[in-house]
Amino acid sequence: MKMKRSHRLVDMTHYLLNHPYTTIPLPFFGKAYNAAKSSISEDIGIIADQFKQAGIGKVETLAGASGGVVFRPRLAEDQSRKYMEQLALRLSDNQRILPGGYFYFSDILGNPEDLRKIGTIIASAYFNQEIDVIMTMATKGIPLAQAVAYALNVPFVVVQREAKLTEGSTVSVTYVAGNNNQVKKMGLTKNSLSRHQNILIVDDYMNVGGTMKGMHSLVKEFECEVVGAVVFAESDVHERKLPITYRSLIRVQKSSDNQEIELIHLGSLFDQ
Amino acid sequence: MKMKRSHRLVDMTHYLLNHPYTTIPLPFFGKAYNAAKSSISEDIGIIADQFKQAGIGKVETLAGASGGVVFRPRLAEDQSRKYMEQLALRLSDNQRILPGGYFYFSDILGNPEDLRKIGTIIASAYFNQEIDVIMTMATKGIPLAQAVAYALNVPFVVVQREAKLTEGSTVSVTYVAGNNNQVKKMGLTKNSLSRHQNILIVDDYMNVGGTMKGMHSLVKEFECEVVGAVVFAESDVHERKLPITYRSLIRVQKSSDNQEIELIHLGSLFDQ
Repeated sequence: MKMKRSHRLVDMTHYLLNHPYTTIPLPFFGKAYNAAKSSISEDIGIIADQFKQAGIGKVETLAGASGGVVFRPRLAEDQSRKYMEQLALRLSDNQRILPGGYFYFSDILGNPEDLRKIGTIIASAYFNQEIDVIMTMATKGIPLAQAVAYALNVPFVVVQREAKLTEGSTVSVTYVAGNNNQVKKMGLTKNSLSRHQNILIVDDYMNVGGTMKGMHSLVKEFECEVVGAVVFAESDVHERKLPITYRSLIRVQKSSDNQEIELIHLGSLFDQ
Repeated sequence: MKMKRSHRLVDMTHYLLNHPYTTIPLPFFGKAYNAAKSSISEDIGIIADQFKQAGIGKVETLAGASGGVVFRPRLAEDQSRKYMEQLALRLSDNQRILPGGYFYFSDILGNPEDLRKIGTIIASAYFNQEIDVIMTMATKGIPLAQAVAYALNVPFVVVQREAKLTEGSTVSVTYVAGNNNQVKKMGLTKNSLSRHQNILIVDDYMNVGGTMKGMHSLVKEFECEVVGAVVFAESDVHERKLPITYRSLIRVQKSSDNQEIELIHLGSLFDQ
């Protein structure tokens, strides 16, 4: 049965949004809708145009035998900034500073509307990188990793603070945690990664960078490569020496007694 | 500037998919697209029709002052079953049984394509329930909770196996864990829930049901109500006595020596 253009547009929009970073051959749509190639191309043109206008992402048509259409979610920069500035305001609340100087934002990382936006913002920053797998650390990094995984359409793996017995063979490394220079262990199930994969590290918070350094060594143990690293929030610590460049969505400046938030501003992801 | 119907359809489809379970007043679209109410109604009709045809979900128009349009994702039942049967096949691999009889499926819970489907399937089962918050247990329940949260557009909260120091004031309960009858503690940050909220519990695996029971008491501590409970996989244990009805996506039947998978079949969510 032939489908009308209006119905095709609705269906293709849904399909593309649910299959980001996937090359879909045009005949796939032609067959599904019993429509001529020229009609499908025109449909794609309309969708590409509207996605661009609305800052949803880029729909690209690739010519040739391996050709097709591919959708890459990219939140428009002005929309990203506007959203992040509002988020910074929501986070600027001294009640978010918990005993020990911890910064509370689990509510944000449990909110699907925020996660959708944050995931797309992070994915936008890495849209022209080849990424095979996203790596994060249990437990608070998981929602972020999943949000980015949805946008980039790649799997994510979760590093455990202590190699969990329930997960079979694991590869683990030691790392220096936090301010107290304690040596800890982190591990990942052996079959989580194959050699030579490109890894994007995603985590919730960076203080002195110990966890990030640990994940970097873990990636090396798997003979993989870190192609990017991003944290949701970083504190204003200046003596970090990391083997990788990382980016942050927000920077948190706390008072010297660690009791108050002095300033939350946009992170290095937004540096020009 | 006036927008063409074709562009409107693409944009509205995107908007609805990103705002499930949200009542959107028709004037919102009318204003955004500078279009007459009748045109918007017609657009909604086309989208509703196609979403129904394709098994994407239900788009409903509510009349009256508080009216508008609301989209509820619902994977068509034949699509759910087909996907779950294929998933059961993928899981029927003895290498997934780890020492101690643990069942490995972290790869599935780290795959965005699977998570999108699973999240929508679970959400479909509770589409006519009032749900305020999804509750899960760290760490493996998190991806499932997030997947369901995306589909139902409600926040999720993460119960920690031991009340984490970094999260400020917590409410905790004791529970009897697993087969060895050990008493453990689980806790949740105090400001995660308000009184009288409706909670959907989502978890990855159910053995004897201790964790589920614990989460149920935790919900009671917060003076909230459990309106549903669902696990991805349940083992074929028969002596469970739970204070709530729960549903599962798959059932795992292991050999008596706990070394092999005998059968994986569809769970109680698919019982007629």
